[in-house]
Amino acid sequence: MTDLDAAIARIVAPDAAARQAAAERQDRLTKPTGALGRLEEVSVWAAGVQGRCPPHPFARVRVVLLAADHGIAAAGVSAYPAEVTAQMVANFLSGGAAVNVLAHHNGASVRVVDVGVAVDVPGADPRAKVRRGSGRIDVEDAMTEDETTVALSVGLRLADAEADAGTDLVIPGDMGIGSTTACAAVVANVLGVEPTTVVGRGTGVDDDGWQRKVSAVEAALLRAGGRLPALDALRTLGGPDIAAMAGLLIGCAARRTPVLLDGVVSVTAALVAAELAPAATAWWLAAHRSTEPAQQAALARLGLDPLLDLGMRLGEGTGALVALPVVQAAIATLAEMATFGEAGVSDRDG
Amino acid sequence: MTDLDAAIARIVAPDAAARQAAAERQDRLTKPTGALGRLEEVSVWAAGVQGRCPPHPFARVRVVLLAADHGIAAAGVSAYPAEVTAQMVANFLSGGAAVNVLAHHNGASVRVVDVGVAVDVPGADPRAKVRRGSGRIDVEDAMTEDETTVALSVGLRLADAEADAGTDLVIPGDMGIGSTTACAAVVANVLGVEPTTVVGRGTGVDDDGWQRKVSAVEAALLRAGGRLPALDALRTLGGPDIAAMAGLLIGCAARRTPVLLDGVVSVTAALVAAELAPAATAWWLAAHRSTEPAQQAALARLGLDPLLDLGMRLGEGTGALVALPVVQAAIATLAEMATFGEAGVSDRDG
Repeated sequence: MTDLDAAIARIVAPDAAARQAAAERQDRLTKPTGALGRLEEVSVWAAGVQGRCPPHPFARVRVVLLAADHGIAAAGVSAYPAEVTAQMVANFLSGGAAVNVLAHHNGASVRVVDVGVAVDVPGADPRAKVRRGSGRIDVEDAMTEDETTVALSVGLRLADAEADAGTDLVIPGDMGIGSTTACAAVVANVLGVEPTTVVGRGTGVDDDGWQRKVSAVEAALLRAGGRLPALDALRTLGGPDIAAMAGLLIGCAARRTPVLLDGVVSVTAALVAAELAPAATAWWLAAHRSTEPAQQAALARLGLDPLLDLGMRLGEGTGALVALPVVQAAIATLAEMATFGEAGVSDRDG
Repeated sequence: MTDLDAAIARIVAPDAAARQAAAERQDRLTKPTGALGRLEEVSVWAAGVQGRCPPHPFARVRVVLLAADHGIAAAGVSAYPAEVTAQMVANFLSGGAAVNVLAHHNGASVRVVDVGVAVDVPGADPRAKVRRGSGRIDVEDAMTEDETTVALSVGLRLADAEADAGTDLVIPGDMGIGSTTACAAVVANVLGVEPTTVVGRGTGVDDDGWQRKVSAVEAALLRAGGRLPALDALRTLGGPDIAAMAGLLIGCAARRTPVLLDGVVSVTAALVAAELAPAATAWWLAAHRSTEPAQQAALARLGLDPLLDLGMRLGEGTGALVALPVVQAAIATLAEMATFGEAGVSDRDG
């Protein structure tokens, strides 16, 4: 049995009794039934993944930020040059990026993992590097079979490390010039849809750049030769970041660590991970709707409806960090509001 | 010159130079242009209303919660009995309501003001009470002309008190069984639309209850005899809470105190306030989309697009409190992220 098979076999459903208790408690709180809207649903999810009612505020939140280069960047699919991946990793390490600012303000910490940056970044641990940039997917596979296995194992080990460290919520973050093109290719292949329906503007390409992305995804899909099983889609069209993140998401579910999904990279990884381990999805909450159409298509397949829709398209885990206070608000209201009985407030008539 | 006229005359536009500086700074931060979506627009608003770039996190946030009873509750328009208004005021004072929990978790404080509760609530200061419950609007005016003037002045004085106390962001909160019916009547009159397009489920009425609300609003509008000037709409169809809140919103703009709008009551008050003082709207940010159609209609007229859409319909200021961390995240990213130059990251090609 492989590491991946073992992790998948360990996945159980969140605690149904805690979910039930949370739903019942919501109906006794001093507010009209359902008046907190989606906060009520989120509080029930939190109770289930924590296995207790009321749930605690998430106190040890970690952004696990996976960085990798993508060979397809050479096809002119990004508004930014490929060296920005390494430069941004240095920016993460020195604390100047959006993810650092938002993590700091939410009491979360950021773990940056180089799983495939083309160069070695001073200060970044290179030991989890699966390869130096992925293959250029319009003409070659993103990775070998062995590399795909290694990348998944990197993600599984990261999930184990977080669970062992007491992390109670994982936010998957990403950085990699060219990653949205790889995501579009993976999502198009897994869902069997046309490239034009999933290719977006990424970091902000113009019309010509968008057309180059579409052409790149079309070429990659043609090369793939039809819909592929999930692991083959990762290997052929994905990259070490997407594969490691799929491993992370499955590993978190196996270790009962809930996950707050972020943008298109994490949701693409979730789509693949759900193909491999459908039971894992109950451990994930969708945080925000990206402007990337591949994310929206994957979310729809996963049956996940994000909490926020703020037009964000940065990745890094930033969308999930902006949604984190909504999750904490949901938990706080369930845990701390008075019930009708406690407050001496009349419940609805009849 | 009345208090209201004086306040309106004091309103100036937010600081255009600070807004411009914020917009320019956004483009130098280490992220693709526009990648933080609506956070960027919110950061520009915050810079303008604070008159500095970068703006500070809002540090003294106050929920000003106005409570009043509505005579129309006697028409069976709510799922809850009228005595719940006073019971919930007691719940606010003892800290058990959703607004208390969410304010506490956001470092905000709550000021509860009885502007029209039918009974005196132990522990609640009755000195701002305009009257004991509004008139039943399907058969009589909500208030007299004098009471409307007093209610507006109560709101203006509250705005002054908050500005003098150093409050840097006001969240208008509301509590009053029957209030959504009054809001629907005011919004329908001001916008000139049919009651069925603005009457919602409020606290959760069934189909019969909804029909009673529609009938009540129809009767009230018929009695009003056509579209009314804003102050007359408040007097005829509103109530002391809506009128005081309109005064609060105008007063905050006059004192350059920004406001984070909440649900249907605050947005109805904003609609009326904007009729009286169009320049005030620049000082307000819409926090969340309520399920009440009157709120959506009023937001559309005001040209405001709320940050969140979480299906909330509780009032009290709770939607704004859930959105507050999004505003703070917008400010933090503008203030604290590294620029391309500082971080040595390559900006986009060309």
